[in-house]
Amino acid sequence: MRRNDNYLPVPGEEKSLDVDFVNTKDTSDESIPMKNRYADDGSPLYPRQGPYFSDGQRRVDYVLTYHIQKPNSIRRQSSRFGDNNFIRRLWRSLNIRSRGAEAQPKEDPEIAAQEQRTDYHEDDKRFRREEFEENIRETGLELEMDERTNIPGIGFMKVHAPWNVLCREAEFMKLKMPTKKSYEVKQGSNLVEKIRLFIHKVTAPLHPEVDPNRPQSVKFLSHPFSREKQHLFDLSDRDKFFDSKTRSSIVYEVLKRTRCTRATYSMGITSLLANGVYTSAYPLHDGDIEGANAEPNDRKLLYEQWASYSFFYKYQPIGLIRKYFGEKVGLYFAWLGVYTQMLIPAAIVGVIVFLYGCATVDDNIPSMEICDPRHNITMCPLCDRACSYWKLVTACGTARASHLFDNPATVFFSIFMALWAVLFMEHWKRRQMRLNYIWDLTGFGEEEQDHNRAEYEFRVMRKTIRKENPTLKREESEKVKVKLTCTDRLPAYLTTVVTMVFMIVVTFAIVFGVILYRISIKAALHMSTYSDQSNIRATVKGTAAVINLVVIIILDEVYGAIARWLTTLEVPKTDKSFEDRLIFKTFILKFVNAFTPIVYLAFFRGRLVGRPGNYLYVVGSYRMEECAHAGCLMELCIQLCITMLGKQLIQNNLFEIGIPKLKKLLRRRKSDLDSKQEEELNRSLHRHEKDHILGPFVGLSPEYMEMIIQFGMVTLFVASFPLAPLFALLNNIIEIRLDAKKFVMELRRPIAAKAKDIGIWYNLLRGLSKVAVIVNAFVISFTSDFIPRLVYQYMFSVDGTMHGFVNHTLSYFNVSEFQPGTDPLQPLHLGYSVEICRYKDYREPPWSSTPYELSKEFWVVLAARLAFVVVFQNVVMLMSDFVDWLIPDIPKDISLQIHKEKILMVELFMKEEQGKRLAARDNHNQDNCNSPSSANQSPPRPRSRPASHANCC
Amino acid sequence: MRRNDNYLPVPGEEKSLDVDFVNTKDTSDESIPMKNRYADDGSPLYPRQGPYFSDGQRRVDYVLTYHIQKPNSIRRQSSRFGDNNFIRRLWRSLNIRSRGAEAQPKEDPEIAAQEQRTDYHEDDKRFRREEFEENIRETGLELEMDERTNIPGIGFMKVHAPWNVLCREAEFMKLKMPTKKSYEVKQGSNLVEKIRLFIHKVTAPLHPEVDPNRPQSVKFLSHPFSREKQHLFDLSDRDKFFDSKTRSSIVYEVLKRTRCTRATYSMGITSLLANGVYTSAYPLHDGDIEGANAEPNDRKLLYEQWASYSFFYKYQPIGLIRKYFGEKVGLYFAWLGVYTQMLIPAAIVGVIVFLYGCATVDDNIPSMEICDPRHNITMCPLCDRACSYWKLVTACGTARASHLFDNPATVFFSIFMALWAVLFMEHWKRRQMRLNYIWDLTGFGEEEQDHNRAEYEFRVMRKTIRKENPTLKREESEKVKVKLTCTDRLPAYLTTVVTMVFMIVVTFAIVFGVILYRISIKAALHMSTYSDQSNIRATVKGTAAVINLVVIIILDEVYGAIARWLTTLEVPKTDKSFEDRLIFKTFILKFVNAFTPIVYLAFFRGRLVGRPGNYLYVVGSYRMEECAHAGCLMELCIQLCITMLGKQLIQNNLFEIGIPKLKKLLRRRKSDLDSKQEEELNRSLHRHEKDHILGPFVGLSPEYMEMIIQFGMVTLFVASFPLAPLFALLNNIIEIRLDAKKFVMELRRPIAAKAKDIGIWYNLLRGLSKVAVIVNAFVISFTSDFIPRLVYQYMFSVDGTMHGFVNHTLSYFNVSEFQPGTDPLQPLHLGYSVEICRYKDYREPPWSSTPYELSKEFWVVLAARLAFVVVFQNVVMLMSDFVDWLIPDIPKDISLQIHKEKILMVELFMKEEQGKRLAARDNHNQDNCNSPSSANQSPPRPRSRPASHANCC
Repeated sequence: MRRNDNYLPVPGEEKSLDVDFVNTKDTSDESIPMKNRYADDGSPLYPRQGPYFSDGQRRVDYVLTYHIQKPNSIRRQSSRFGDNNFIRRLWRSLNIRSRGAEAQPKEDPEIAAQEQRTDYHEDDKRFRREEFEENIRETGLELEMDERTNIPGIGFMKVHAPWNVLCREAEFMKLKMPTKKSYEVKQGSNLVEKIRLFIHKVTAPLHPEVDPNRPQSVKFLSHPFSREKQHLFDLSDRDKFFDSKTRSSIVYEVLKRTRCTRATYSMGITSLLANGVYTSAYPLHDGDIEGANAEPNDRKLLYEQWASYSFFYKYQPIGLIRKYFGEKVGLYFAWLGVYTQMLIPAAIVGVIVFLYGCATVDDNIPSMEICDPRHNITMCPLCDRACSYWKLVTACGTARASHLFDNPATVFFSIFMALWAVLFMEHWKRRQMRLNYIWDLTGFGEEEQDHNRAEYEFRVMRKTIRKENPTLKREESEKVKVKLTCTDRLPAYLTTVVTMVFMIVVTFAIVFGVILYRISIKAALHMSTYSDQSNIRATVKGTAAVINLVVIIILDEVYGAIARWLTTLEVPKTDKSFEDRLIFKTFILKFVNAFTPIVYLAFFRGRLVGRPGNYLYVVGSYRMEECAHAGCLMELCIQLCITMLGKQLIQNNLFEIGIPKLKKLLRRRKSDLDSKQEEELNRSLHRHEKDHILGPFVGLSPEYMEMIIQFGMVTLFVASFPLAPLFALLNNIIEIRLDAKKFVMELRRPIAAKAKDIGIWYNLLRGLSKVAVIVNAFVISFTSDFIPRLVYQYMFSVDGTMHGFVNHTLSYFNVSEFQPGTDPLQPLHLGYSVEICRYKDYREPPWSSTPYELSKEFWVVLAARLAFVVVFQNVVMLMSDFVDWLIPDIPKDISLQIHKEKILMVELFMKEEQGKRLAARDNHNQDNCNSPSSANQSPPRPRSRPASHANCC
Repeated sequence: MRRNDNYLPVPGEEKSLDVDFVNTKDTSDESIPMKNRYADDGSPLYPRQGPYFSDGQRRVDYVLTYHIQKPNSIRRQSSRFGDNNFIRRLWRSLNIRSRGAEAQPKEDPEIAAQEQRTDYHEDDKRFRREEFEENIRETGLELEMDERTNIPGIGFMKVHAPWNVLCREAEFMKLKMPTKKSYEVKQGSNLVEKIRLFIHKVTAPLHPEVDPNRPQSVKFLSHPFSREKQHLFDLSDRDKFFDSKTRSSIVYEVLKRTRCTRATYSMGITSLLANGVYTSAYPLHDGDIEGANAEPNDRKLLYEQWASYSFFYKYQPIGLIRKYFGEKVGLYFAWLGVYTQMLIPAAIVGVIVFLYGCATVDDNIPSMEICDPRHNITMCPLCDRACSYWKLVTACGTARASHLFDNPATVFFSIFMALWAVLFMEHWKRRQMRLNYIWDLTGFGEEEQDHNRAEYEFRVMRKTIRKENPTLKREESEKVKVKLTCTDRLPAYLTTVVTMVFMIVVTFAIVFGVILYRISIKAALHMSTYSDQSNIRATVKGTAAVINLVVIIILDEVYGAIARWLTTLEVPKTDKSFEDRLIFKTFILKFVNAFTPIVYLAFFRGRLVGRPGNYLYVVGSYRMEECAHAGCLMELCIQLCITMLGKQLIQNNLFEIGIPKLKKLLRRRKSDLDSKQEEELNRSLHRHEKDHILGPFVGLSPEYMEMIIQFGMVTLFVASFPLAPLFALLNNIIEIRLDAKKFVMELRRPIAAKAKDIGIWYNLLRGLSKVAVIVNAFVISFTSDFIPRLVYQYMFSVDGTMHGFVNHTLSYFNVSEFQPGTDPLQPLHLGYSVEICRYKDYREPPWSSTPYELSKEFWVVLAARLAFVVVFQNVVMLMSDFVDWLIPDIPKDISLQIHKEKILMVELFMKEEQGKRLAARDNHNQDNCNSPSSANQSPPRPRSRPASHANCC
């Protein structure tokens, strides 16, 4: 059988068979325009332009590439023997067997030995490739080798899946394919339908023009493909029944299953790729994007209608994206679209809140009080020795600016954003469900990618060998499946934990370093010149934030690499496990990296300063930094703003646009071609060669990760920076098209992966939006002055207004109680001698019985702050859960339609069943004699099946 | 075709066909022992004892019952015409057509008219029955009418599903059936396996002896049944391939699909049942439980090994329960078992915590201080006028008792219980997953019960008619499917909201009434005799708790009825929707009912009392009640104890055991039979008659609801009552066997419903365990004295011990400032005149500048309490989420095995595929000529399929 298989199918025979079929079906001739171009006159005109085998008939569904050591000799060989599989293989096997004899003595024995070793490795690889390819052929796939390529040193193995393999595998994979039966999709009652149509008409210019002819309201019933139910499907055009995405994923499925078993250990395609037997494996793009002779294809359509900045205001053609890239990529872009869309209202409300702050800045009594020069409040110095007393009125600017972000509207906005996050999740869940329905994924159980990773298999093999060596006798133990236990992985786990902790400590240290930088620079500036304080502050704040930003961006890249390295150390079993572990580590590191400075600013800055006369010192003599009066939130805001803008601009523009361009440039330099020559070359390249030049697809994790961190920025500290959604929105509008360009133009086509949901990212989003509630509660109650103001107004104010609030928040300090050496050098800086200075805290005055103890007001405010946290957290969580409960996860029209589909399916089968029964009865009536001989005639059954079958139904 | 169908299958012919089949298969003869008993000599010995048609061959899979108006005449008819369907139906249709002529004038015209009307209704029903039965026959099911029964006035329609119908429907329903292929279940590595075996050996006596022969380590691969893949399944014994549970659910599926269309509106089986056309529909139990001639059957096995109190310590035979009752019931008992099992550690820890309280009661400084007679603290009176000053030492007993439930161990215990709840959920999720695997439910998508309810259809019909009447012309509008919109349901929704709010107000009012009762009785007792205070308190507490309990139990029943009524008003579309809405309403009402008194005690009692000189009054002159000193927790504890014990004892014993017994007694009275006669009758009854006497199955909701409320008791206030898990455990041990007895002995067999999980109940449990964290945080920080003690120890205590705590918590009151008329009548009750009395609160003393204001200590303690809430809530939630994340939802061995099953399945199909290909190739080689005529021979295909099929594979 194997022998039979190897020689089958001979290309020519297959072709005639194919044509045979086409002729019998008649209809399909018009619908295969590309095929016809080559088949018209028998010999192809542009022989190797399209994604077809050299016969111009069989489509290339997948490509494997490998290094060719001696391109000349092999080229000659392959050209000599042409495409005749049998002869080539025969020649090769002879070649391998006679290798010992062939190794003739070379001139220089050392070089010869080296060459021989390389040769040996190369031969070993070729040997494996041959076995693998043999096994592939056995599964029914067809191969064509192409070593006479325009890319030197690279050989291509083109894979084609013939119709029978496609059918078989589609049945195995239970691929849901559209049946002939279509039905009308009705969306709810008449009114709803009208509204929907109206909205559709209004938003028509926003929809991309990808498929104007397809009627929106008709959907084909789909059913898992089965060769026994072929009559259900419209197989009139076999070339289009399975689209290129499906074909390549079917081939990939077969490749994954195929294994080399003659090597030391059983190797799958992943192991072969990891060991360099093959250098890459990828499906082909549909066609060219640009150029005169680019036929209309999905890729071109995507390029024209999606991957362009000029379409930023339009919806994305999600259906087409899914059709071309598969469900996983489709879901990413759908999610990004929903996120961006949802950011619009958030951005609008954020801007309104900000404008409200601007509008009310003049009505704000506390800042009026601060700015009022009549309130002649003398403040205690902000640093030891160098600083002197200062007047509160100088903090006027900061106080007014603070009000922009610290006003009652902020509280409303953070509640709004908490609910927004829930609504976003709900909206996405519903959208996902709708896509699942449209993409026929309902009922598709998430199949685990159970394929072991190459590294894992290698480790297992090593372990097996190690186990066997000492006790060679126990050969039966080989049968026991060895696997990596926790003990094997313990060192890696330990490394991971230690490295992660170390990295987090590094982050903290850097943040602390920046703090020290700020403190020391500030002190130095104070020391040298007594220029305007606010200028100093601004400079320090700005530079510190920029340093933080730079550190964040650099560490981001470093941490990404470290996380990948650590995950590799752990040798996870499957790709899924690898991805999960990697995401987990990357998330923790990147998150800590991005948010440590912000968390410090929000919750620790200005809180650990001690009090006049008893300051807190770090690293010897540096006093911990304080916030400006009412200014912690302001600084938080600046930091957030710089981080968000800077990170997005730099990471997007520099890394995502700049670096690929640079790489391209370098590659061009390397190949020593000017642009004209390159264009010329480009035209002469085949599809699989063009795709080989593109970058490999590395997964969606980095894209998602970027967005998740951004989502964190938008939700976590939204109470302090209401413009965050706006920035995020602007970024995402660019991001979508940027990613689109990358996917369409710069990357090889990814293997279409099925997915029902966005997986772990959804959980991360959920976790973030939960944490956001708590963080916002703390920001509002502890970082902002919202609670102290409320408490003052309702408990301490004499007339129920905010007048006197500033005075109330300032405690008294007797300057005679400064610790020796910390009193200001220039006590008369303000022009008069100071006896009592004020500082921002709730403490007993010097003349109380317990001076400088925390006062009753402190505890009242603290209780109020905590009460606010408890109430806010629980109310918002309750509201979120309520919203979550209120909105059904499955949109009503979708659940109705799913139900309808089921009923239609049952009806279809019932009809079929009735037809069968009628036929059976007719048969029964015809041959009443019921003799055993007649049973063979009706109903006709395949012989291979058990006889009992005939009795059923 | 319809005609053909009606006359087919004639029973006799079917029988011979069946036997024919048995003969061809040889093997099946031994394996049908029950059948043989009747088939041995051709004529059945005990003709109608077992669940078979009168031919003793065809199994009764389902029974429909209906009322017979004129039992005599119909009996005669049915006996006259025997089982000949055709003649009977003919006679009937004649009967119906000639009804007009038949209605002869009776003696009394009024009675005659009435009779005629009843007759008309009865005839109408019979007419529908006939149509329905005709339609059923059309689907291939076989029917047998039995109106000559031992139960007067009831006719039975027995339904049998022949093999072909079973096959067809199993394929439609995608029932997963075990294939021939089995594989060994290996549970992890060797060590794990050994431990598992050891545990299994140790716990062997705990396992019920239901299936000792079945090897535990072998599992059959299962695959959705398909007639095209029949060779996969072991069909050697057709009678046992589908067990009785599966057969009845298949029949039920067919019945649900069958509709009467000739009536005013299309009616399904639910509508027919609701309209009284049929009185009940149920599958049959497997056999008798007791009695000498009861053959071994699953029901008997369940009765012997499960439904008995003497097996309380054993595991439940979940597999057998599932096999007999279906997945839904199986999951309920599995869940109950897991819950009970998990209660064991909780109960043990709870008892330890309680014992710790008992052991440390003598070391507790605060209670020592209270009990120390040297601390001569005079307390302010607890009520106006009647009460007088009292000495703190009299509260000694309460203070000591309080310590039992209010000690640091309680805090630990409530954290423990929060984690316990999470662990319980996780454990259940894993158990559920394991059961899903064992029961082959993986990949089974929860099918919605999409069948419309009869009430809904009726309403829709009415609406349609109403719509049509005014505009008779628009006959085409009939086609538009009418459905109930929100407008139609608005009155019902409004009613629901109003009633629910009213009911909740009633609950509050009753609780308030009990409070008033307590206040007034206490005042009255004080007024009349000045006996021992603690006696009065105990009496009042006890009676109040009992009143609360009685009210709770009564309202529980009332609310259940009201919720059902409200849900009926809303006319939900499907049964699932009905159930969800009902559960939602019942849950809210019962929850409010059960927990309002407890919440009042925990959070409001003693907090709204005002202060001496400024008390809070309700209903004129009643002062709000205070807690005993350090006693709020104590009262909460008593209330919880009485509620839990009382509710469980009364509801379990009285309602679940007593009332069914009473009902039985009444029924026996009614039927005027003594026990001997009854036994005699019982013996002569057929299976379907015996089952008809049993109570109908009303769903699992009440059982679940009871457990959910109990779970709430166990988790919500566990901080105040560590013995709750113990009580719950004891109750559940009884509950399991009680429910088991009910299911096995007292109820008709439920239709086996498939379910992957426990559905909405899981969400409720989750919600409860989330709420429990918050409630416990509040109980610990606000109800118990834990926080004040901590604050005192670390902030105010002079020497860092608890000495002086009691004094610190008491404020001073100057008795001269009593409001007029509220000072005690007997100010010299203690033997000396009082100038300053003390009360429990943190307020400024009379001599401060702000007398009776809340003091700084109050705010410190409040801040500490709130901080504790914030920390506790977030830490416990974080820990819960961490535990949730740490424990994988799918046990590792199960996920491995699921993976293994998949691989085996693919292998199986690959092998099959290869076989086919080989066969095809052989054929291909044989007839190389490839002539069109040979295509018909190889491969042989049914003619009905499209020719293209032959080209594939």
